[in-house]
Amino acid sequence: LSGKYESLDYDIVENDLFEEMLKNNTNKDYIKTEFLRWLIMGMIGVLTGLVACLIDVCVIQTTQLKFGYIKDYITSCLENFCLEVPLLIWICCNAFLILIGSFLTAKFAPVASGSGIPQIKCFLNGVKVPHVVRLKTIVIKIVGVICAVSGGLIVGKEGPMIHSGAVIAAGISQGKSSTFLFDFKIFEMFRSDHEKRDFVSGGAAAGVSAAFGAPVGGVLFSLEEGASFWNQALTWRIFFASMLSTFTLNVVQSFVKGHPLDLSSPGLFNFGKFETTTYGGLEIPIFILMGIVGGLLGALFNHINCKLTIFRRKYITKVYLQVLEAVIVALCTGTAFYVCLYFDNDCQVMESSESQENGIQFFCDDGKFSSMASVMFRSPEESVKSLFHDLPETYQPTTLILYCTMCFFLALWTYGLFVPSGLFIPSLLIGAGWGRLVAILLHYISPTAKWVTFEKYALLGAAAQLGGIVRMTISLTVIIMEASGNITFGLPVMIVLMVAKWVGDIFNEGIYDMHIHMQGVPLVGWEPSSMLSTKRASEVMSHPVTVFRTKETVGRIIDVLKSETHNGFPVVDDYDPFVEQSFQDEAESFGRYKGLILRSQLIVLLKMKAFEEHEDVQDVKSVLNIKDFRDAYPRFIPIHQINISPHEREFTIDLQPYMNPGAYTVSHNSSFPRIFRLFRALGLRHLVVVNENNKVIGMVTRKDLARYR
Amino acid sequence: LSGKYESLDYDIVENDLFEEMLKNNTNKDYIKTEFLRWLIMGMIGVLTGLVACLIDVCVIQTTQLKFGYIKDYITSCLENFCLEVPLLIWICCNAFLILIGSFLTAKFAPVASGSGIPQIKCFLNGVKVPHVVRLKTIVIKIVGVICAVSGGLIVGKEGPMIHSGAVIAAGISQGKSSTFLFDFKIFEMFRSDHEKRDFVSGGAAAGVSAAFGAPVGGVLFSLEEGASFWNQALTWRIFFASMLSTFTLNVVQSFVKGHPLDLSSPGLFNFGKFETTTYGGLEIPIFILMGIVGGLLGALFNHINCKLTIFRRKYITKVYLQVLEAVIVALCTGTAFYVCLYFDNDCQVMESSESQENGIQFFCDDGKFSSMASVMFRSPEESVKSLFHDLPETYQPTTLILYCTMCFFLALWTYGLFVPSGLFIPSLLIGAGWGRLVAILLHYISPTAKWVTFEKYALLGAAAQLGGIVRMTISLTVIIMEASGNITFGLPVMIVLMVAKWVGDIFNEGIYDMHIHMQGVPLVGWEPSSMLSTKRASEVMSHPVTVFRTKETVGRIIDVLKSETHNGFPVVDDYDPFVEQSFQDEAESFGRYKGLILRSQLIVLLKMKAFEEHEDVQDVKSVLNIKDFRDAYPRFIPIHQINISPHEREFTIDLQPYMNPGAYTVSHNSSFPRIFRLFRALGLRHLVVVNENNKVIGMVTRKDLARYR
Ligand SMILES: Nc1ncnc2c1ncn2[C@@H]1O[C@H](COP(=O)(O)OP(=O)(O)OP(=O)(O)O)[C@@H](O)[C@H]1O
Ligand SMILES: Nc1ncnc2c1ncn2[C@@H]1O[C@H](COP(=O)(O)OP(=O)(O)OP(=O)(O)O)[C@@H](O)[C@H]1O
Ligand SMILES: [Mg+2]
Ligand SMILES: [Mg+2]
Repeated sequence: LSGKYESLDYDIVENDLFEEMLKNNTNKDYIKTEFLRWLIMGMIGVLTGLVACLIDVCVIQTTQLKFGYIKDYITSCLENFCLEVPLLIWICCNAFLILIGSFLTAKFAPVASGSGIPQIKCFLNGVKVPHVVRLKTIVIKIVGVICAVSGGLIVGKEGPMIHSGAVIAAGISQGKSSTFLFDFKIFEMFRSDHEKRDFVSGGAAAGVSAAFGAPVGGVLFSLEEGASFWNQALTWRIFFASMLSTFTLNVVQSFVKGHPLDLSSPGLFNFGKFETTTYGGLEIPIFILMGIVGGLLGALFNHINCKLTIFRRKYITKVYLQVLEAVIVALCTGTAFYVCLYFDNDCQVMESSESQENGIQFFCDDGKFSSMASVMFRSPEESVKSLFHDLPETYQPTTLILYCTMCFFLALWTYGLFVPSGLFIPSLLIGAGWGRLVAILLHYISPTAKWVTFEKYALLGAAAQLGGIVRMTISLTVIIMEASGNITFGLPVMIVLMVAKWVGDIFNEGIYDMHIHMQGVPLVGWEPSSMLSTKRASEVMSHPVTVFRTKETVGRIIDVLKSETHNGFPVVDDYDPFVEQSFQDEAESFGRYKGLILRSQLIVLLKMKAFEEHEDVQDVKSVLNIKDFRDAYPRFIPIHQINISPHEREFTIDLQPYMNPGAYTVSHNSSFPRIFRLFRALGLRHLVVVNENNKVIGMVTRKDLARYR
Repeated sequence: LSGKYESLDYDIVENDLFEEMLKNNTNKDYIKTEFLRWLIMGMIGVLTGLVACLIDVCVIQTTQLKFGYIKDYITSCLENFCLEVPLLIWICCNAFLILIGSFLTAKFAPVASGSGIPQIKCFLNGVKVPHVVRLKTIVIKIVGVICAVSGGLIVGKEGPMIHSGAVIAAGISQGKSSTFLFDFKIFEMFRSDHEKRDFVSGGAAAGVSAAFGAPVGGVLFSLEEGASFWNQALTWRIFFASMLSTFTLNVVQSFVKGHPLDLSSPGLFNFGKFETTTYGGLEIPIFILMGIVGGLLGALFNHINCKLTIFRRKYITKVYLQVLEAVIVALCTGTAFYVCLYFDNDCQVMESSESQENGIQFFCDDGKFSSMASVMFRSPEESVKSLFHDLPETYQPTTLILYCTMCFFLALWTYGLFVPSGLFIPSLLIGAGWGRLVAILLHYISPTAKWVTFEKYALLGAAAQLGGIVRMTISLTVIIMEASGNITFGLPVMIVLMVAKWVGDIFNEGIYDMHIHMQGVPLVGWEPSSMLSTKRASEVMSHPVTVFRTKETVGRIIDVLKSETHNGFPVVDDYDPFVEQSFQDEAESFGRYKGLILRSQLIVLLKMKAFEEHEDVQDVKSVLNIKDFRDAYPRFIPIHQINISPHEREFTIDLQPYMNPGAYTVSHNSSFPRIFRLFRALGLRHLVVVNENNKVIGMVTRKDLARYR
């Protein structure tokens, strides 16, 4: 476990200052706060929707620019046998876009690379990943994802949307930016980890909702990945944010697409309309088989990606190497398609006007177009849709096999590059590809069977592949249901996802969890490992404990804060820290428990010089209020920047008014599962272990739980 | 608060016996248990689906029987002017059916009356409503609801489905029936309140899912009404149950309807296919207005129903009166329609073949049929669908007004009768009625506007009315989305529900909560009242506390259990219960806290005579294991049925191996919101309040929280 990650303080510090604030609060203040919560959630939803639109429009524009230029060139070149030139131009264009995207990411915001889902998952779980919700991150994420998608990589823009939503939420709810040092002086009551995390849940949900037009799926995503406990009011607000985000996207899209206010096509990417809405009970074994295939392929994907990531972390550490790798991938992706073009001559008759517009003749006869070429010049989203819905004869089995395999390895290589990149679309692409193959196979076996429809099997293949890679469950089912606008397929999708997860879990974890664990993030899982069910608190706790006395000297506080990395300290009485305790057994205790004080609070106290002996001590006490603590949030200055004169070291601070007297404790003989539940359900950061006389004997933090996995 | 209701023990008793069991458990046992959990959930889903089918088929059969007989009679009578005769027969038929249904309910299982949602809500919240998950209850519920629906009352069969699902879950998971005294000797590990409650969540979800074809809505219903904290594995299992229930229903229905294994129409009742899938951003103000109307009408509905319920509880207490009332309602419903028939001559041209089959000519010219008559002879579900989808000219405004008003008052009167009856369908009926009126109005104002489609406004009116009455939020949105198979309307439905809830909440609570509170059930709400945020544990706890010593005499245990109603007792040492403590202040304490023992455990101990002084004490200790406690579950014998000789009263029991040493405690200065969160998040029953020295000073239970509302 890496020491780089700190936890969020989800617990509310109910000290005297807080109580005073509550006492001063009238009913009107409560209503105002509640109203502001809704307002902010609304703003998060709207802004997330707008950002989704922005990304979408930019990607479309860039791609069309590129494609429009190339297309005529190709057509004219086909006659003049100079086909390499436009294709080379095309590949270079792509490489250039990727160069920009990956340079920005690698240089200025490495945390913006990838889909951002692992980071958001950590944040919702209660772990602060540094820089993850900064303004800079989102700007680079947006620019980067536009470059990556229009640069022809096999990536989606959906994962990054979720990250963007989360950053927007964290930004708006604080009413200030620490990067740019401006402060709107609004929403000050929301400057705490607790409130921020709640808003970020909303932002993530809004992101999912905008990405897939799946507001319910968004809510479930937030819950599945982050919820400590089910809070009805919060869930309802999250739902509001995600509804509004789809709605905003919808409204703007309706204008962009030229039929204003016709709100029918939600989501950045939906799966298109499915004609088939039935399935037979006898198909279920086939679905289960598909789930198994998805699980196996997913496990393989994750395994190779894992090895690759380890390699990357070891050797590709310089910015220029990272950029280089991204550019190489871009070049390879282009070349691979190019090579396929030559070897695969799957020519299709042009039928719809749509295919006439986008289809490319290439080496095909007149009136036909090349499947591979159209796949090559299309955005991945369109390819997924085409794989779902296009006529059975659009793709030959060989094209599909070639395409699937290529996508599989390219996507594998791409995920983990220093560019913002989603994994949903590539997975869907691979899955829809082999799903179609399954349909072809079934069609071959029983040519007359009416139930073999390509779209159904393509959808289920996509679900299986996605499930095998990300191993998400409930939320994914609902997202797929909502994105396909099809409720009937709920059960097959669920079965497929479930089987894929079970099969995949035999080999390794989901890709997001894998990346989280490789970075040593102390994520707390869903359930305590069954192996540990007979462990007791006294076996998992840290011992000895660094504690403070209720009236502590400034000198000792400074010394402890400088020498220890801990973020929370029990406050005790009946204890002398300078008497060396000789016996190091469990019975050793550190004074009677009074409350818990956080490092951040101590730093504010030291900075404000809230010393007992201060001349105007009365003043300090009456002036120091909850606002001082909020203003310092979220970047408390490090301890060594605080100047304390040697004279002041002798002073004392009375910690009682500031500590959290209600902070949870457990008795030393509580079982591990019980502690785990408490942590999980209440989103704790510190848990003090006490003995039978309420004397402190140990500390349990997130790391102590995450250690046992 | 009524004393009749006991809490469920959601907390796990982690005593020595439990630990021993865990130690003996191999990894295989864990997997087996996990597998059984899935299996049971699957069975719950399938069975709930089957029961839903059964109800559906029975209702259809009974209704068709009735209608088929009457129809010809009417046709022949129209010519002979003997119309009163068939109508009288019809009304009598109805009254007879209601007589049966209500007699069964009132006499044998009063708890089966109504929709059962309030009772399930209580159960999921952690309150045991007596008899609510008994086998007898479900049998009567099923028969009763068939009678009620086919008896022509304005009721739905959907609410009762939820109750049925819950009972099925409770039944299956226990592997025995206490009513019929048989025991399959399976699933013994699930014989605890904790496991049972988890399964019941699944059952309730399966019920919703079967009723509306809304598996996701079902899961959210369970979470919204019951979840303590978000447990991923459990939620996933619940989802499985609800998916399977829709699936089973689907399969069976496909056979019943004659196109086997074509699984396209999920749910007992879905809203039919909506043609309109768009709405304009400018319609939103209209939606908000509709929400307000829904909220107001809902509040009115609840208010009158509340008064009616108070009246009923006072005067209609005898079985014969209850049956009489139900029969009177049935007669009135019949007569009301009858009267309307005469006064409203809204004749429509027969168009579709469907309307030709079911349409009744009545006083209309040839080739036309009477709207009112067809409404009268149709099941409420069909009427809702017809209100949603039928052509604009099907209903005249006057018919709608008449019909809505009638339904409003009849539904009002019906809910609370001693028959099983759902409230969803009546609400939808009323709402769809006035939603159509809104559409007519809008059409009148701007006749050319294309966006005024009847189905959209009927749906939103239905949502508004339902929201105004039941005040459910997230789950209701999703249920409506799923039942209408329409994801685009998510935002409008949400807006309408939200506004309806807010407006309604100004006046009173949702109807389910109202009934719960009128019965004095100690339901713990979602959030602590903001008024109480500065209260401390010491202000809400009960004091003095009845405690037991670690080695307690049998005599004292018997005496305490006989004289007190408490269900949990702190186990302490350093305490002498026979020294009268004179000072009754808060500082008074009752010995050092060691653990918590439940009444049910003590009763088993007494029954098994696990006395220290027993001759074969070694034997008792090694023989007594966790199975003894499970076998006694759930109906522990009352204390006065236990025979203890005067001689045995002197014996002692060592409580330490049986008590729960990890049971949660809080310090006396914890704040009320903190205690509330702990209770809510962990589903507690007892919380021991201790002072700074870990000595017991008070107890907090559900009643202490529910008292402050
Ligand atoms: N006050 C303390 N005295 C002694 N040990 C402590 C104290 N606080 C935490 N620990 C222990 O130190 C180890 C890690 O230290 P740290 O305080 O950084 O916690 P952490 O798990 O990293 O959580 P956070 O994310 O809050 O920093 C843990 O094993 C924890 O039990
Ligand atoms: N051991 C105890 N000693 C003293 N008071 C207690 C004890 N247990 C509970 N009480 C108090 O008695 C009151 C109600 O008694 P009871 O034990 O029936 O609890 P309850 O709230 O009804 O919960 P349950 O549903 O478990 O019965 C509550 O105010 C509670 O605080
Ligand atoms: Mg740390
Ligand atoms: Mg009680």
